[in-house]
Amino acid sequence: MQIIKNQTIDQMAKQIRQETAATDDAIVAAQVADMIKNVRENGDEALKTYSATFDGVTPATWRVSEAEIQAAMASVPQKVLAALRTAAENIRTFHQQEVAVGFEDTPREGIVRGVKVTPLSAVGIYVPGGTAAYPSSVLMNAIPAKIAGVPNIVMVTPPQKDGLNPTVLAAAKIAGVDQIFQVGGAQAIAALAYGTATIPAVDKITGPGNRYVAMAKKMVYGQVAIDMIAGPSEIGILADDSARPADIAADLLSQAEHDVNARVLLMTTSAALATAVNAAVAQQLETLPRADIARAAINDHGVIYLVNTIDEMFTLMNLVGPEHLEVQLTNPAQYLAKIQNAGSIFLGPYASEPLGDYFSGPNHILPTGGTARFSSPLGVWDFQKRLQYLQYTQSALAEDLPAVTQLARAEGLEAHARAVQSRFNSSVG
Amino acid sequence: MQIIKNQTIDQMAKQIRQETAATDDAIVAAQVADMIKNVRENGDEALKTYSATFDGVTPATWRVSEAEIQAAMASVPQKVLAALRTAAENIRTFHQQEVAVGFEDTPREGIVRGVKVTPLSAVGIYVPGGTAAYPSSVLMNAIPAKIAGVPNIVMVTPPQKDGLNPTVLAAAKIAGVDQIFQVGGAQAIAALAYGTATIPAVDKITGPGNRYVAMAKKMVYGQVAIDMIAGPSEIGILADDSARPADIAADLLSQAEHDVNARVLLMTTSAALATAVNAAVAQQLETLPRADIARAAINDHGVIYLVNTIDEMFTLMNLVGPEHLEVQLTNPAQYLAKIQNAGSIFLGPYASEPLGDYFSGPNHILPTGGTARFSSPLGVWDFQKRLQYLQYTQSALAEDLPAVTQLARAEGLEAHARAVQSRFNSSVG
Repeated sequence: MQIIKNQTIDQMAKQIRQETAATDDAIVAAQVADMIKNVRENGDEALKTYSATFDGVTPATWRVSEAEIQAAMASVPQKVLAALRTAAENIRTFHQQEVAVGFEDTPREGIVRGVKVTPLSAVGIYVPGGTAAYPSSVLMNAIPAKIAGVPNIVMVTPPQKDGLNPTVLAAAKIAGVDQIFQVGGAQAIAALAYGTATIPAVDKITGPGNRYVAMAKKMVYGQVAIDMIAGPSEIGILADDSARPADIAADLLSQAEHDVNARVLLMTTSAALATAVNAAVAQQLETLPRADIARAAINDHGVIYLVNTIDEMFTLMNLVGPEHLEVQLTNPAQYLAKIQNAGSIFLGPYASEPLGDYFSGPNHILPTGGTARFSSPLGVWDFQKRLQYLQYTQSALAEDLPAVTQLARAEGLEAHARAVQSRFNSSVG
Repeated sequence: MQIIKNQTIDQMAKQIRQETAATDDAIVAAQVADMIKNVRENGDEALKTYSATFDGVTPATWRVSEAEIQAAMASVPQKVLAALRTAAENIRTFHQQEVAVGFEDTPREGIVRGVKVTPLSAVGIYVPGGTAAYPSSVLMNAIPAKIAGVPNIVMVTPPQKDGLNPTVLAAAKIAGVDQIFQVGGAQAIAALAYGTATIPAVDKITGPGNRYVAMAKKMVYGQVAIDMIAGPSEIGILADDSARPADIAADLLSQAEHDVNARVLLMTTSAALATAVNAAVAQQLETLPRADIARAAINDHGVIYLVNTIDEMFTLMNLVGPEHLEVQLTNPAQYLAKIQNAGSIFLGPYASEPLGDYFSGPNHILPTGGTARFSSPLGVWDFQKRLQYLQYTQSALAEDLPAVTQLARAEGLEAHARAVQSRFNSSVG
């Protein structure tokens, strides 16, 4: 990886900001807009055409039957099922702490104000297919929705020539998904947003996908809610002399093996560590099954920033706002307060990032591309919404009448003033 | 208003769904995309051009000075200032109950997991100008951001030939806005999203605007967060024989006077009430200052649905998901559990909707166009975000090692398995 040193904070910040600037792809946009229109107009017929074209297979039935799910469960090794069940339980105990509750108060006699929290009625979760078919993503999407109380969780995933990944189906069963459909790509997003004869329309679509899926999510946003627009995976590691180069290299490679576009970033105060990490990366790449992918990501999107102080690290890393942030510094928990922008934080030498991907409970669907500035990890909060309410007695209203009519008239909205006044008119007609 | 009766629930539901289907405007989209590009490339120069073209005025300085704000405060009648301060206090006491807090747990010895809640670093609030310059919107946007702890609240509002509305500036001061800029329209949204030499880039943009502003917000979504895409204002009223026709008519008109595109909707079990409300609307329109606007909204977007049962009302109204929902039924609070989709709910004969617009505390920036299916009122939740964190000891990691590597290998991600394993290798290089 390129080592960047002897630069001012401003120079490095400028470079980082350029790397994280959001870009759109006009050709993808035009194609996806056309696909959405086609699905809205032609429903299942459009899905059939796109499935044949893009997936190379048209499933006999879109909906995956309970029998198919049971058969898949039976084919998954018991050890994997047990690990999935433990992971699901960890994800549950973590996310149960995220449930929001409403409130009600009486600021004065005769007035009741409140917020009621309810689950969304139906959500769609997108699960990529092929080599990126991750059972863990099924758990991470569906379990928070289930905890929120969503009564209808609809999963979509691209059809496969050899049938769906049985571990993905097992994860859906364990997580409590209600319906599974074999449909993927931008067409699946369109179907979930607008509904077809077969695929139910939902209120929110969550889960990562390729750039066609990401563009489709952006385009249907407003018709339905979406969780976020996912970009390439990212890891940022902050390390000092106390860190082990082999562990850092291994964690960088665990992100790099996802995707040739994955971003891997190390910031350190130690020139020796920077050199040692580069050597360890090269060595570990030699025996890695997905070395081609990881090497491309490391070469094209791997950078080591050599900085002067630990404070500089946090200043820079907050500009990046990485999806995953490892703090491999002495007494790491003391730095939590310095972190403003990151999806998920891994503190100390033993919190290796894959723990968060699979197992420990925190969500792995996280803001990318610097969107941690304003976005949160996927959570129960994505599947709950709020409704406000207000009740007054006539005498409470009488007290507030002068101020309310004052403000309404200051805004030139006489009908607003009269509506409140109407409650004190004797006429009932 | 047209009275619709003798229809099945399915017929009425179909009509309602068509009315609320989201639509985009291709011409507006092309124009706004061009404006955003221009602001990104040419910064303040682009703002100057658009301001001259669309606002008919180019302010000498974009930033509103503290002296100008103080002068504005001094020019606002004391009664209005007092009413604004009381409203601000009500909004504060309501929204303080919305603050989210994080959590931390230790599911097993050696493991710490948590969620940290932080405010966004900078937010932009859009305040429309001209006849739609609402001081109350300033309070509703800025106070939740302030309660969340956002350190930089930036307000933008279109320049006016006669200077900015002093009550709007007073409201900004009362609410604790940090910076005010005289820039509006789609160009203001672009400036807040990408920053110019004068206007700081922010992390989230909130507040309603016209369709150019709404389109610009949709287009910059991803670069920054946005609250929602606001459509025309809406009110839905559920009423039985116990309701007073004059009060219902007055409340319908208070929405109708906002905008010729406002949607006003009454659902009732009483044919007599439907007729009486229509008569009262006609009578009240005679003396209303904004009668032309209100009449157009009532004629074009006013509908009364005559239904058979109270249950039918809730089924239908949940399909609409109106921005404002009044429940003018006997013992209204009993129906709260039946309401799934609505922005803000007004219970009983005395909770006239303008109370919520100005004064009582609940927010008035609310989901429109049926988006209450998946959106919440603007709240403190819009200005806070979450970061997850995780810490392990080596012995805790040893216990989870088999399951984590199992799952990583089931997904074909060997580097993930090796990263966790690395912590138990003796090699440090």
